[in-house]
Amino acid sequence: MKSGVLARYRDFLPITERTPLITLNEGDTPLIRAERLSEAWGVPHLYFKFEGANPTGSFKDRGMVMAVANALENGARAVICASTGNTSAAAAAYAARTGLDAIVVVPGGKIALGKLAQALIYGAKVLAVNGSFDDALRLVRALHEQYDVALVNSINPYRIEGQTTAAYEIVDVLGDAPDVVCLPVGNAGNITAYWEGFKRYHEAQRATQLPRMFGFQAAGAAPIVHGKVVEQPETVATAIRIGNPASWRRAVQARDESGGRIEAVTDEEILAAQRLLAAYEGIFCEPASAASVAGLRRALDEGWLTGQERIVCVLTGHGLKDPDTAIANSGAVIPIEATLDDAVRALGWQ
Amino acid sequence: MKSGVLARYRDFLPITERTPLITLNEGDTPLIRAERLSEAWGVPHLYFKFEGANPTGSFKDRGMVMAVANALENGARAVICASTGNTSAAAAAYAARTGLDAIVVVPGGKIALGKLAQALIYGAKVLAVNGSFDDALRLVRALHEQYDVALVNSINPYRIEGQTTAAYEIVDVLGDAPDVVCLPVGNAGNITAYWEGFKRYHEAQRATQLPRMFGFQAAGAAPIVHGKVVEQPETVATAIRIGNPASWRRAVQARDESGGRIEAVTDEEILAAQRLLAAYEGIFCEPASAASVAGLRRALDEGWLTGQERIVCVLTGHGLKDPDTAIANSGAVIPIEATLDDAVRALGWQ
Repeated sequence: MKSGVLARYRDFLPITERTPLITLNEGDTPLIRAERLSEAWGVPHLYFKFEGANPTGSFKDRGMVMAVANALENGARAVICASTGNTSAAAAAYAARTGLDAIVVVPGGKIALGKLAQALIYGAKVLAVNGSFDDALRLVRALHEQYDVALVNSINPYRIEGQTTAAYEIVDVLGDAPDVVCLPVGNAGNITAYWEGFKRYHEAQRATQLPRMFGFQAAGAAPIVHGKVVEQPETVATAIRIGNPASWRRAVQARDESGGRIEAVTDEEILAAQRLLAAYEGIFCEPASAASVAGLRRALDEGWLTGQERIVCVLTGHGLKDPDTAIANSGAVIPIEATLDDAVRALGWQ
Repeated sequence: MKSGVLARYRDFLPITERTPLITLNEGDTPLIRAERLSEAWGVPHLYFKFEGANPTGSFKDRGMVMAVANALENGARAVICASTGNTSAAAAAYAARTGLDAIVVVPGGKIALGKLAQALIYGAKVLAVNGSFDDALRLVRALHEQYDVALVNSINPYRIEGQTTAAYEIVDVLGDAPDVVCLPVGNAGNITAYWEGFKRYHEAQRATQLPRMFGFQAAGAAPIVHGKVVEQPETVATAIRIGNPASWRRAVQARDESGGRIEAVTDEEILAAQRLLAAYEGIFCEPASAASVAGLRRALDEGWLTGQERIVCVLTGHGLKDPDTAIANSGAVIPIEATLDDAVRALGWQ
């Protein structure tokens, strides 16, 4: 029986005797060896950590299971977050699993319900405030301060603790830390968590080396790259559309301690990488995830990497999270008559 | 390193020395122990086999990896199927991974692109014929007969072979076969494959017993239950909207040999089960999957089961495959002013 990340990595997590070891069987996600892309790019030791295989379809489950376990330990009756994306899905799922209320607060106005499908079906109470995202966040904090409601937005430190487990898994599967880890950077909690995880495992002598951390922001949402807050972040990679990352300082620290880089990739590069991953490797990830692969391409082009390193690209979320972008980023359906001649011509076989 | 189902279960599959052991790390899906539903329903030994965790989000990956490996072994240059759903996604992904062309033929007219998002991004050539589904299938067969194109629709026997691996995994995790397996029945290949898998493992002395197979069709698409073809099958559970199952005879055989049942559940029961799974267990599956849980509820109500058995419900596909039905099947977003008073009132906390 798979046991989930809390039971498996309890020695490396802030778990006490009173922490319930809840699980939706998160983690233990596949480290998929690259095949055709490896050959096409001349990168023989390339792996994809496919976090879309987590129960709610993103890496957020690792941090949320830890945050919700901690909330239960502290007697919370509900969890709350301001999010329209992967965080709200994860919060709602673990709350459902453990009988807590989940409250998701979003700015009102034109809400894309597709983004909230998961939170809604998991039974979260979704409040749309007449106001901005800042108004939503302010309300979330006020409810947290006055009621037994655990705040599970990314400022909750247990989130990053849980996310360290992805690093342990990579080492456990490869037998050592890789040379390089490429990952998308939005709120910067994940690069922080991976680096922390690799350091802990190294100190515990589970790994003989530490990887270099290569983080990639979207060009329209690259505050760390440019060293200043982006007021109106814009990118097709919605999961990393962040102008003022919560873990900014620690991400820079991870970069510098590891001898890595944090760089920007364009939306065009991100979408090209998403297509390549799907059409060359059979892996469908959401656009933000593909920033890690777009970044690897850039690192090879710019000579930051030789390509001979042992490289892991982290794919943070499932492509089914954003089917509309996938369709817009794909070839079209070809209309034909129902004849063999027409089909063969459409396929270019004659 | 996870190795995928072909390598892991090669002794139980039609694999030769020339079969390439391709993989997208399919299989090894979580067997999630029921928590709150277990208690609410008085079913202490209940598990969910969550096949939505497969790489393309459904159990189809198990059969497709076997069918594509066989196609490669036989020198095919492409795979072809007539499907708008999970089969086309799986076919396109494994073709992409292995450098084959994937061709998906669908009836033209009003096509819901959402259903084809995966096939398109994986790079399949999607042909929309000016005609019916039967015209599409006829064209697929004609192309298969005249070109080196492997037909990977469900009539390909390697599909069912690959799907037997889910049964092996359940036994490997539980240490023995369960008493009862509940699963959705559409084309009836999956109930056939599970039964075959349990029998093989039993013969190989990996399990001391065989489970009873409980299959559930949607009431509007229940040809096996009623013993006659349904000309116009209708159900919200699109993945089992089948009027004339390809594996009809073998499904009946599985039912009778195992002492099981094949029964119908209504769309209302299916949607209620989908909601319960999400809101009580934190598991989001597509509507067809929930037929297994709706069926278990019915089996308990009708006295076909006591509830004390060790029961596995198979959840065949991820909920993100059909977000629209999830939203329609959920509570609504609650609009509020951005004040604490309004929020507390909306949450019913005062």
